Amino acid sequence: MSAVDVPGGAPARVETPAPGDPRLARLSLNQRTTASWDLRSAIDGCLAAGLPSIGLWREPVAEVGLETAVRWVQESGLRVSSLCRGGFFTVSEPDAVEQAYAENVRALDEAQALGARTLVLVPGGLPAGDRDLVAARERAAAAVERLVPEAEQRGVVLGIEPMNPIYAADRGVVSTLAQALDIAERFTPAQVGVVVDTFHLWWEPGVREQILRAGDRIVSYQVCDWITPLPADTLLARGMMGDGHVDFASFTRWVAEAGYTGDAEVEIFNADVWAAPGADTVATLARRYVELVQPHL
Amino acid sequence: MSAVDVPGGAPARVETPAPGDPRLARLSLNQRTTASWDLRSAIDGCLAAGLPSIGLWREPVAEVGLETAVRWVQESGLRVSSLCRGGFFTVSEPDAVEQAYAENVRALDEAQALGARTLVLVPGGLPAGDRDLVAARERAAAAVERLVPEAEQRGVVLGIEPMNPIYAADRGVVSTLAQALDIAERFTPAQVGVVVDTFHLWWEPGVREQILRAGDRIVSYQVCDWITPLPADTLLARGMMGDGHVDFASFTRWVAEAGYTGDAEVEIFNADVWAAPGADTVATLARRYVELVQPHL
Repeated sequence: MSAVDVPGGAPARVETPAPGDPRLARLSLNQRTTASWDLRSAIDGCLAAGLPSIGLWREPVAEVGLETAVRWVQESGLRVSSLCRGGFFTVSEPDAVEQAYAENVRALDEAQALGARTLVLVPGGLPAGDRDLVAARERAAAAVERLVPEAEQRGVVLGIEPMNPIYAADRGVVSTLAQALDIAERFTPAQVGVVVDTFHLWWEPGVREQILRAGDRIVSYQVCDWITPLPADTLLARGMMGDGHVDFASFTRWVAEAGYTGDAEVEIFNADVWAAPGADTVATLARRYVELVQPHL
Repeated sequence: MSAVDVPGGAPARVETPAPGDPRLARLSLNQRTTASWDLRSAIDGCLAAGLPSIGLWREPVAEVGLETAVRWVQESGLRVSSLCRGGFFTVSEPDAVEQAYAENVRALDEAQALGARTLVLVPGGLPAGDRDLVAARERAAAAVERLVPEAEQRGVVLGIEPMNPIYAADRGVVSTLAQALDIAERFTPAQVGVVVDTFHLWWEPGVREQILRAGDRIVSYQVCDWITPLPADTLLARGMMGDGHVDFASFTRWVAEAGYTGDAEVEIFNADVWAAPGADTVATLARRYVELVQPHL
């Protein structure tokens, strides 16, 4: 594997950890970080690099069919740290509401079949022409509530993902960890948790207190960096850990302090990262993880 | 003036209000909205369109010299709704700290001379290579505290501007109205207030409660829209009111409910808006203002 980091091209500051290295014991590859890989390649890539865990997306699972995906995952021995994603339930038209509900129930079925610990819920943005953010947030909370019995039945925890306010209009109306917890706390931690993502939350005032408040509701810890200048396509604005402004040492310590014992999932949407060979990306993120995240977890 | 709106090109839905129209009584043009205009053109543009108030920037004032600027403003009869901007005091090197302090004192001198009600403070981002956001925020609060006696002496209110988290790394570490108020409330409302800007705050959970909490600390109400997809240069990502997702009716009602009686300043950083002739931009914003903002103020 390359000794140059993706995408910055800086020389790696640590050796690539070899498979079996105990420092990799909680590292998960979110599939979207290696977007050019199909499910088979992603599973093989994790195994080759010694990553014990993978964060799956519904689309590449659907490409091969659920049954095949389940078999591959079981044969691989990988943990499924999360399934991305449910949600997008801020719609207001009755038909759209029912469609979103049905889609989320299907996602829960898949999470159960795949043995995913949690279904990540990206709430969705404002419907076209709708400017009532308060009402959209209420619809998101109501949709979570409606899904709780379905999730419980399947042994899957719903993970609300608060999203950077840059996405409040078009992707995720839940904008802070505090707000996600206000919703989650209406339920038990076994029913509804929160996804803590450095990109989305690094800027939140008082985020340490909110992470501690979250405690055992943290169902997923996702890491990637906030880089400037922000890439032109804001959906692809996420950076490799160490390339941006996030203080991973402090943030990770707070997550550990909250009692989190799950995987750290590297999820990077970035055109430059996607352009690199998947194996190079995995090697880079493994190096950055053992340098910047793992010592504090 | 054109009957087509800038920059969308949609036909105007209301007539351009004529000078003397009472609906214009609280409308202020922030100079940066018509970036191609120098100070003289901006003053003349306000007078021609019947706007009673202007938000000044230090750079175009410096271009003609403070003395000339003061004379022009006084002769024009325009109110100066704010002076942009002080701040950028999150630096940590002792020399840089002193330089920022001196620069802010100069800005206060200018605000006093120009009769500006408030000096807008943009806190600044993280120094290069510095990832300690908590410490940068503390330095911002300390810098405000140090400026209070200087501001008081000059009869100028310091206006902390919380900025959309999109700018937390490189421009403004104070990210919510709640956080700005936590700092402002260490002082009297005559000393330190807050700038309420729709672009920066439209997404904040519980923002209505924070606006009501702000009450007479609101020293400036700035309006522009949050548009998607976000333009490639995020610094120029602001949209004309009505082109995006902000609910100006609700937001403006909350500001009025808080007791705000000052001007509404239209501040739009946007390459398309800047490319239009200044007079067309002013006509468009006046129409959008009387349609979307003024009825609720």
